[in-house]
Amino acid sequence: MRSLRKTLLLAILVSVVLVLALLHSWPTRAYTTVDVWQRPGPIVERHLEERLPEADHRLGNIPFRVRDSVAILLARNGCVCEGESGGVNLPFAQLLFPRVSAHPLHTAFEASELEEMKRRRAKEYKSFQKRSESLADVLIIAEANNPLQYPTQGVEVRPLKTIIIPGRVRHTFVKVDCCPTVKINMTATLGTLNVAAEVDGVKIKGDGEMHMTLSSSLLPNLNRQLQFVTYTNTLFHPSTADTVHFETEGHQAIFSIKIRHGVTPKLYNTGSKGEYNVSALVTIATKTFLRYDKLQDLIDSVRRYYPTVTIVIADDSENPKTISGPYIEHYIMPFGKGWFAGRNLAVSQVTTKYVLWVDDDFIFTANTKLEKLVDVLERTTLDLVGGAVREATGYTATYRQTISIEPGEEDGDCLHMRRGFHHVIQGFPNCVVTDGVINFFLARTDKVQQVGFDPRLTRVAHLEFFIDGLGSLHVGSCDDVIVNHATKIKLPWVTQSESDKTYAKFRYPPASSDATHTKNGLLFFKNRFQCLTHN
Amino acid sequence: MRSLRKTLLLAILVSVVLVLALLHSWPTRAYTTVDVWQRPGPIVERHLEERLPEADHRLGNIPFRVRDSVAILLARNGCVCEGESGGVNLPFAQLLFPRVSAHPLHTAFEASELEEMKRRRAKEYKSFQKRSESLADVLIIAEANNPLQYPTQGVEVRPLKTIIIPGRVRHTFVKVDCCPTVKINMTATLGTLNVAAEVDGVKIKGDGEMHMTLSSSLLPNLNRQLQFVTYTNTLFHPSTADTVHFETEGHQAIFSIKIRHGVTPKLYNTGSKGEYNVSALVTIATKTFLRYDKLQDLIDSVRRYYPTVTIVIADDSENPKTISGPYIEHYIMPFGKGWFAGRNLAVSQVTTKYVLWVDDDFIFTANTKLEKLVDVLERTTLDLVGGAVREATGYTATYRQTISIEPGEEDGDCLHMRRGFHHVIQGFPNCVVTDGVINFFLARTDKVQQVGFDPRLTRVAHLEFFIDGLGSLHVGSCDDVIVNHATKIKLPWVTQSESDKTYAKFRYPPASSDATHTKNGLLFFKNRFQCLTHN
Repeated sequence: MRSLRKTLLLAILVSVVLVLALLHSWPTRAYTTVDVWQRPGPIVERHLEERLPEADHRLGNIPFRVRDSVAILLARNGCVCEGESGGVNLPFAQLLFPRVSAHPLHTAFEASELEEMKRRRAKEYKSFQKRSESLADVLIIAEANNPLQYPTQGVEVRPLKTIIIPGRVRHTFVKVDCCPTVKINMTATLGTLNVAAEVDGVKIKGDGEMHMTLSSSLLPNLNRQLQFVTYTNTLFHPSTADTVHFETEGHQAIFSIKIRHGVTPKLYNTGSKGEYNVSALVTIATKTFLRYDKLQDLIDSVRRYYPTVTIVIADDSENPKTISGPYIEHYIMPFGKGWFAGRNLAVSQVTTKYVLWVDDDFIFTANTKLEKLVDVLERTTLDLVGGAVREATGYTATYRQTISIEPGEEDGDCLHMRRGFHHVIQGFPNCVVTDGVINFFLARTDKVQQVGFDPRLTRVAHLEFFIDGLGSLHVGSCDDVIVNHATKIKLPWVTQSESDKTYAKFRYPPASSDATHTKNGLLFFKNRFQCLTHN
Repeated sequence: MRSLRKTLLLAILVSVVLVLALLHSWPTRAYTTVDVWQRPGPIVERHLEERLPEADHRLGNIPFRVRDSVAILLARNGCVCEGESGGVNLPFAQLLFPRVSAHPLHTAFEASELEEMKRRRAKEYKSFQKRSESLADVLIIAEANNPLQYPTQGVEVRPLKTIIIPGRVRHTFVKVDCCPTVKINMTATLGTLNVAAEVDGVKIKGDGEMHMTLSSSLLPNLNRQLQFVTYTNTLFHPSTADTVHFETEGHQAIFSIKIRHGVTPKLYNTGSKGEYNVSALVTIATKTFLRYDKLQDLIDSVRRYYPTVTIVIADDSENPKTISGPYIEHYIMPFGKGWFAGRNLAVSQVTTKYVLWVDDDFIFTANTKLEKLVDVLERTTLDLVGGAVREATGYTATYRQTISIEPGEEDGDCLHMRRGFHHVIQGFPNCVVTDGVINFFLARTDKVQQVGFDPRLTRVAHLEFFIDGLGSLHVGSCDDVIVNHATKIKLPWVTQSESDKTYAKFRYPPASSDATHTKNGLLFFKNRFQCLTHN
């Protein structure tokens, strides 16, 4: 009997454990499938237009006179690759009156490969569009004389969470007859609608579903109920938008609910309070190639003014030498990996709030006051501020460029670069707002890392960084923080060193390289430009 | 006489050149100043609320019954740092029923430094908010019974450019009396209003300024004129929004115009058409530290299946060895620079469309079919897809995690991580959508570079990358692409090598490190969390 009892107890224990294990693995929610394929979906576009009254057609008969000065500012259909022609043909003409030149970019490719490149580019672009378009950018028009009051902007919910729809949705129905039933139909697509509280006298149908209806003969009660309408996102996506429709008495109200996590901050510890602690706030980053003497001059000059600031050096020289010293981080790369790859490497290692980019042949002087640049970024919303570079001749350059993109059609967009800037910065009379600057700048580390230096650019490149940063970098330039540039003047009686010759071979390459990794090939394929104009 | 004529001609030539030089340097536009200081500006918030009729106050008297099942889903005011308490205390309880534990993050700091850390964090966060808030996210409510029809979403202009305001702005004024004058006042802040064409019978005032008025006694003509209203952005900012007000007969219409460049694509050349060319599409990236034997095993296993795919290796070992072979890129870092610094370095060098992350102790097998992962990313909108890692015991893990952030108040937000996923992916039955995955994944290079691996994380870290990617990475996980993990099982009779011992010292560090560079210290300061809960 005892052994029987033991067996029984054991059997029960085993069953209990098995049941618990089964319960644990039992799916506690039925996972729905989600369609994340790259195919076009329904878009709410001009939905209301079909419902507009006939009056619009009558407007077509009313004549108008075009105002050329304004009409000429509007975007054309597609962009045309043209520069400025003619102009005075004096000896100093290009210097005094720099003309705009236009460069069609498809010329980066051999005729034999161009069609294939265009086909691939169009395919990649179509994918990109599907991934980046959002219902939150679609044109929505508010109807006139809508009895509904509703929110048109600013409604947000975190993925899979619930909110009360804000904006005191109200129905201002003004019929005089007593007590007709007023009904509101509400629809969502990526989530469900519900009510957080119930009000007497209001009939609710479809609560917890994508389509909900509220109806009542008591308008104040209906409006009270409307204050408790909730939206719950049920179809997960980290950053998207749902379009919600409210409909009543033949009137429509359409608005978007943004579904997103919210922007997580990426803050940096700034070191001790009080004055700017440059060593805690700034890391100097540079790339070097076969110019250890110039690099050492740079380091020595930095140390005269900033003995403890960290210097990050990306090095793709052929036989790398050791660079030692406190607060120096030296990174060895495969030989000749490239200019922008080295820049991307250097900034990828920065752990301070700001990064200062310098070329390896700069020299710090008493005018190279980094505190001034830090002050600009600490007190404004700029992300990057350039300084000035002084040549041996005394000529000082800030290389300010404005950049704009004119949308094109299938052939691609047009990229326009012009010397100059947009505005002077209030409170910083030596500083301006622009789009591109010289290769001596202080920037927010997280923004520079986010934009990045494309490692496909192996040799000559500069403004490509600012083109990639368009729309995300707010760029400034100050001409009162100056760094010197070691002279490039080649004196005829001084023989060029071997490393100088090798350097020149890489720095000023011949035209025969992999087409999509050249500057123009990359602008054509990667950024989908057809034309570049500049002065 | 002749010398006089020559002198005269010379004088004229010099004067001409001087005049030309003067004209060239003459400012051709008066540059306005722009205020980019970090200070709060006027925000259109609840603008209409003050103007709502008294009726709203009467609604307050109408009673309601709370629906708990819905009300409980709404966000609380601030978040609370609590896990799950109690639960069955069986031997396998945590395994069968993993409980949620909560970790307050301020504990990363000594009591003596905590106040200063909180103060600095609050200051940095305030700056961050000023840089990231946008008028395009502010709550706007459309009035009921507005005679104006206007666009509420989707109006965009490129910086300093001009558009016609879309949406067929119309006035549906319906008064019966003959010919009263109808007036519309329009206001903008970051730009000016104008008309691209003029219509008879409409009086225009303030055209070309920030405040324009159209008035007419002929409604159809006024509506025809409204079709030609233009907006020109005049105050430069690379990404912002202007709030435009239309007012007529006591009614207001408010909407945003987004001012931005548009998203510039970053496309990659995918190699030959036809089947997936893994070598052209994928770069394998890894970081190594004192484990050259395991690294060589990884490389050999990769080469068995993918002889020409590029492998990028970031190496912060103390005495780096040479790793040679075709299609291998070896990067030497300062000794012990760190885990995420190495990951950031490796991905910063990738020039193909996709990057595959592997740890240096993985082994490729016949089940490691990269083509399957490429297929997922080519055909869906996912940015990253994880695979599965098989241990020597046969246990295979995908380490799927869902991540959400609950907004908090001054103490910071609450970060919630749970094992699991959101949905199964339609068409890919072995794949799901989630937020975090194991360290074996294929991802779009541009997205991974944009999110980045924070080099402040020197030793142990994993999900921090996915936390930084929240909202920008669309993450998936497939369990049918498997890589093997070299065994970590330490057999008692096998002596640990010197490098194994050094490795262990770095890999599993003691708790005493720079607080803001620890995992929890960084979550507290950088991302502004107060609490982490997970199961």
